[in-house]
Amino acid sequence: MQISVYGTPALIQPGDMQGATAVVIDALRMTSVAVTAKANGCRGLLAVADVEQARALAAQDGALLGGERNALPIEGFDFDNSPLAYTPARVGGRRIIMSTSNGTRAILAAAQAERVLLGAFINAAAVAQAVRDADKLAIVCAGTLGRFTLEDALAAGAILQHLPMGNENDMALAARTLYAADRGDLHAALARTVHYGRLRDLGMQGDLAYCLTEDTHTAVPTRGEGGWFA
Amino acid sequence: MQISVYGTPALIQPGDMQGATAVVIDALRMTSVAVTAKANGCRGLLAVADVEQARALAAQDGALLGGERNALPIEGFDFDNSPLAYTPARVGGRRIIMSTSNGTRAILAAAQAERVLLGAFINAAAVAQAVRDADKLAIVCAGTLGRFTLEDALAAGAILQHLPMGNENDMALAARTLYAADRGDLHAALARTVHYGRLRDLGMQGDLAYCLTEDTHTAVPTRGEGGWFA
Repeated sequence: MQISVYGTPALIQPGDMQGATAVVIDALRMTSVAVTAKANGCRGLLAVADVEQARALAAQDGALLGGERNALPIEGFDFDNSPLAYTPARVGGRRIIMSTSNGTRAILAAAQAERVLLGAFINAAAVAQAVRDADKLAIVCAGTLGRFTLEDALAAGAILQHLPMGNENDMALAARTLYAADRGDLHAALARTVHYGRLRDLGMQGDLAYCLTEDTHTAVPTRGEGGWFA
Repeated sequence: MQISVYGTPALIQPGDMQGATAVVIDALRMTSVAVTAKANGCRGLLAVADVEQARALAAQDGALLGGERNALPIEGFDFDNSPLAYTPARVGGRRIIMSTSNGTRAILAAAQAERVLLGAFINAAAVAQAVRDADKLAIVCAGTLGRFTLEDALAAGAILQHLPMGNENDMALAARTLYAADRGDLHAALARTVHYGRLRDLGMQGDLAYCLTEDTHTAVPTRGEGGWFA
């Protein structure tokens, strides 16, 4: 298997997504939200870059609205970006349109891939299972505002630990090493990082604990018709 | 100290180099060449992107020409990109114009920095010493053809091990972790990587052994007038 990890969407080059099975990771927090929503009965999730466009589509579709800007709620949206908010009572049988700063951009950057799946710590083993027959695996880390973030590379490593070593790019090798070094205490490893630090300082310890716990879910949101993940 | 590592020049954002002390790393092999040339008496080294422009400048300046494309020599140049070729007999008292695929691009990407130094495994401790009073340190890894490469991140880690933990971006933290994990056997860590593999397959084991040995040199090429490093 050819395995490439992209530390941010900016590192994707033309052709990289061609024929690939892409896994998009925005572990803190968008793809953790998507996994949770699917597990709790959400029928479909669509990532939209622009807030106004998200509002218009939701009004048309009858979908709920979720997302954030700079980790904070968006005026008038049904949900912020906390996975804990996406309960069965609130998302069961519904569709959700999400707009977030980073995960949305990464999903769009992977658009040319043959398949697109959403991955996180909370479904790492299930993602590995879902991609194990792929010839070409491309893991796209969302990062934060164009910056590489350690948590997404570690989540890539959490997925890769379940896959045999393939023909790997340097970031894939690095993700494996980083994960092996940090897996014993992800919170300690991330304590000095920018995005984890911001969420902690905003009082989102519950989200951090939830998003950094591996394999609590087996749901793997997968892109279908019209770009909806289900 | 604010410490940022950029996994490739593409990850530099506007303002990142402003007021910074930049260290450019292309450990395999351009910055290792530059360190070696300086240690062996070279009076100045200029990085030029375009081969024809390099030829014209060299003719004008009386400088020697060095560099590579895809790791191979350039027609009519005095040197390829092997540091072993830059002996005192050949570089003593001379100036050299270099054109390489990756290191040159990274040096140009750091142009807005206040100071620019060239770093590698072979001068890691000396680089750390040279930057220890900087307020803002920006380590720019060259990578290969726009791709992140593990060897440059490890060389960044080799420098950072000599500096106290500062206010660091996620790639700086990752570089420290990768280096701590891989320092025991850099060759084994890099055996599966693209660029190391290519040089090995081209029979350049001597260069690899030389470039991956830490702290054999104390020379730190530093940008001066006209962009010449001395």
